[in-house]
Amino acid sequence: MSQVVSEKQLLLEIQPFLSDLNESEVRNVLEKYRPEDIADIFWDIVLDEAKLIIKSVDNQKAVDIIRSLDEDLLERFLKGYTAQEIANNVISFLNSDDAVDILNILPTSKAEEVLSFLEDQEYAKNLVAMLHYDDDVAGGLMAKELVQVKHNWTVSQCIEEIRKQAEEVDSVHAVYVVNEKNILQGVVSLKDIVLSKPHISVIEITNVDFISVNAYATGEEVARIMNKYDLITIPVIDSMGRLIGRITIDDVVDFIKEEADRDFQLQAGLSESVESGDSVFILSRARLPWLMIGLVGGLGSSMIISNFEGDIAHLPKMAFFMPVVAAMGGNAGVQSSAIIVQGLANNTLISKNIIPKLGKEFTVSLFNGLVCSVIMLSFNIIIGHGFDLSFVVSLALVTVIIFASILGTITPLVLDKFKIDPALATGPFITTTNDIIGLGVYFSLGRLLLGAF
Amino acid sequence: MSQVVSEKQLLLEIQPFLSDLNESEVRNVLEKYRPEDIADIFWDIVLDEAKLIIKSVDNQKAVDIIRSLDEDLLERFLKGYTAQEIANNVISFLNSDDAVDILNILPTSKAEEVLSFLEDQEYAKNLVAMLHYDDDVAGGLMAKELVQVKHNWTVSQCIEEIRKQAEEVDSVHAVYVVNEKNILQGVVSLKDIVLSKPHISVIEITNVDFISVNAYATGEEVARIMNKYDLITIPVIDSMGRLIGRITIDDVVDFIKEEADRDFQLQAGLSESVESGDSVFILSRARLPWLMIGLVGGLGSSMIISNFEGDIAHLPKMAFFMPVVAAMGGNAGVQSSAIIVQGLANNTLISKNIIPKLGKEFTVSLFNGLVCSVIMLSFNIIIGHGFDLSFVVSLALVTVIIFASILGTITPLVLDKFKIDPALATGPFITTTNDIIGLGVYFSLGRLLLGAF
Repeated sequence: MSQVVSEKQLLLEIQPFLSDLNESEVRNVLEKYRPEDIADIFWDIVLDEAKLIIKSVDNQKAVDIIRSLDEDLLERFLKGYTAQEIANNVISFLNSDDAVDILNILPTSKAEEVLSFLEDQEYAKNLVAMLHYDDDVAGGLMAKELVQVKHNWTVSQCIEEIRKQAEEVDSVHAVYVVNEKNILQGVVSLKDIVLSKPHISVIEITNVDFISVNAYATGEEVARIMNKYDLITIPVIDSMGRLIGRITIDDVVDFIKEEADRDFQLQAGLSESVESGDSVFILSRARLPWLMIGLVGGLGSSMIISNFEGDIAHLPKMAFFMPVVAAMGGNAGVQSSAIIVQGLANNTLISKNIIPKLGKEFTVSLFNGLVCSVIMLSFNIIIGHGFDLSFVVSLALVTVIIFASILGTITPLVLDKFKIDPALATGPFITTTNDIIGLGVYFSLGRLLLGAF
Repeated sequence: MSQVVSEKQLLLEIQPFLSDLNESEVRNVLEKYRPEDIADIFWDIVLDEAKLIIKSVDNQKAVDIIRSLDEDLLERFLKGYTAQEIANNVISFLNSDDAVDILNILPTSKAEEVLSFLEDQEYAKNLVAMLHYDDDVAGGLMAKELVQVKHNWTVSQCIEEIRKQAEEVDSVHAVYVVNEKNILQGVVSLKDIVLSKPHISVIEITNVDFISVNAYATGEEVARIMNKYDLITIPVIDSMGRLIGRITIDDVVDFIKEEADRDFQLQAGLSESVESGDSVFILSRARLPWLMIGLVGGLGSSMIISNFEGDIAHLPKMAFFMPVVAAMGGNAGVQSSAIIVQGLANNTLISKNIIPKLGKEFTVSLFNGLVCSVIMLSFNIIIGHGFDLSFVVSLALVTVIIFASILGTITPLVLDKFKIDPALATGPFITTTNDIIGLGVYFSLGRLLLGAF
């Protein structure tokens, strides 16, 4: 039983042989490791070392390593190979779903060149058909490799078909039953095939109440359906109901992770998927747009505040509480919008009716705002800021918390209605808006109640 | 082929019969729907209606509906049933992993009562053993139902065993091979069983190079391993290597979602998992702690600024730019920490070596900070704030962006080192800290360069 190892261990063991270009020792070391673990060390080695590794291991293992590489790594790595090498040594050995992933990463001209080098014309045709789909819809996520049987076959004919396809299809989880027009009729579990007598008709053990997805269903939708109905695989059909592929849960797990990552990034104000290993240029590019939004918002708030220059000069203490009013508005707003965004993402927000939500949001934020305000009021009076100023600060605080919470509830729902990713509402955009509104409220109340003018 | 339906459609159709307590019509409507879809409408109906639905459908469907309920819904729903009803009508029909989930939701005393009502003593004993594990480690995620065969059996003996267990184990993805001491020897795929001659020994088709997890492995670890090695099921072993259960990918998908949700919540400043459907009390409780942190931070920043009261009185324009300096620090800090947190969560941050990261972070933030500062400087000079103040603001801006980025990079790595969830570093805590530091830097520079005193 081999254990899951850390990449450090492998790296330590193999590094000297990589430096010496000692192919046979590299092969010896790698024999003990799984392809997925070998892929991990590609983060820490240079292209020539990576090529040496791929050259040292047998072809199937090489392909499994390549298949396990992170997208960014893969892109960099493939630059070291010609289209012909990629066609003959990589694509030919992959399932269609993994092959399409790689073709999508390559520049279009190189991808076309790779396709032209493929010897298996049928396979190349399948890949071209799959490339027509976006890589985030069912047609782009599916694999063509599956076991399909005709509805009038016997169980023993099905077993023969599994045997014939065994080499091409690595792991069989279900057998798909189609009619003479290739229209999907149902699904048979391998368990039922194992337990049935060979001469019975396969239709007798076919589950006809199955769930399928259309080729144009989004990855998110596929993920949600597979998760909801606890499916391991799902068949993909075209608009005529014909079976064209299948998606396995592991591809959807990646999708769920990617989706979640994207929401997290939007919330953090990153405009593209970045990793700390990316170049300075990419890292800056992902971050600058959101900083710009913050900057524009900041300039906006500076212009709002400039209207109150006299008030500040008259009562500089007003400035002490600008950050807390602005920050609390930002925090309360992000909390509210995050709850809505998560509800939308997880589909637990059955009723999108906005009125009761706003009522509840008002109650919650009134309560939280009052608690914060009372603490603030007591603190400021004790510290000696006087009742008048302290009262204005606390009144502004509760107003801003309520206002930001309501805005935070409405914004993602409105974005969602207009088919814009509601997670935008949790990022710097809403925080900045709340900053501006919060400070406007604060200074207006100050002018009104403290009568600076 | 039944389609995936919307809960609205079902709700519309069933609502009149629910109101009339018309059990036979309710049954008729529900026959057309899947249990997972029926579970969805539980959000919109009251307890008595839910009980009517459960009473109307057959027992297996009832259990499948209950199994599909969201945790919060389930908790509310189970309050309507006695321990005996839960034992006889729910737990008895569930796989051990789902049964343990339900027992974990119940108050301890009621869970014990449920266990005492179970007729199948062996099953009750299994559940008690599983309850010893936390619900977020492998032992708490696994199910006991699996097909295990002895290493000296033939393929036909294995098929007999699958047949015997077919009723108890819904879906068989793999057969586990153990020796006489119950120590796991390997895994056989159903495909290989289908394709092998009945008389050969099972050990000949057993994959002995399999991956397993220890019962105390965390859910996160299990998710990472299953995702990395593209596994559909994984066997769970005890410290002696004995097979004690198996985890299927669908339970881990939920776990990945939960983990991602938790990170998102921490970032948004929510201290527990809440949904917009939760009560006002729960929603307030989840949000107040983080607002408090913001409040304390805000009071802290007000005390810092109070040291500069004279400067502000002398030059009230200084106050105009407090929000932008504070906000930009917050934004830049969250961006940096989010990249590190995501790298840690996805395990793409192979080397935790902090020095090169800080170097890169410094470069990125210097570049972004300079871009923002130059824009700010131009804007402020054009708008007529004068070079001196504009220069101080821009200098503060670039300093704060660099400082916040470095702090945002270090904090999650330090938290991770001390086994604290690094996602904490993306929430209000770090934003508040950056606010305080940013304003301190801004006013100090102002005093130094504008010579207010």
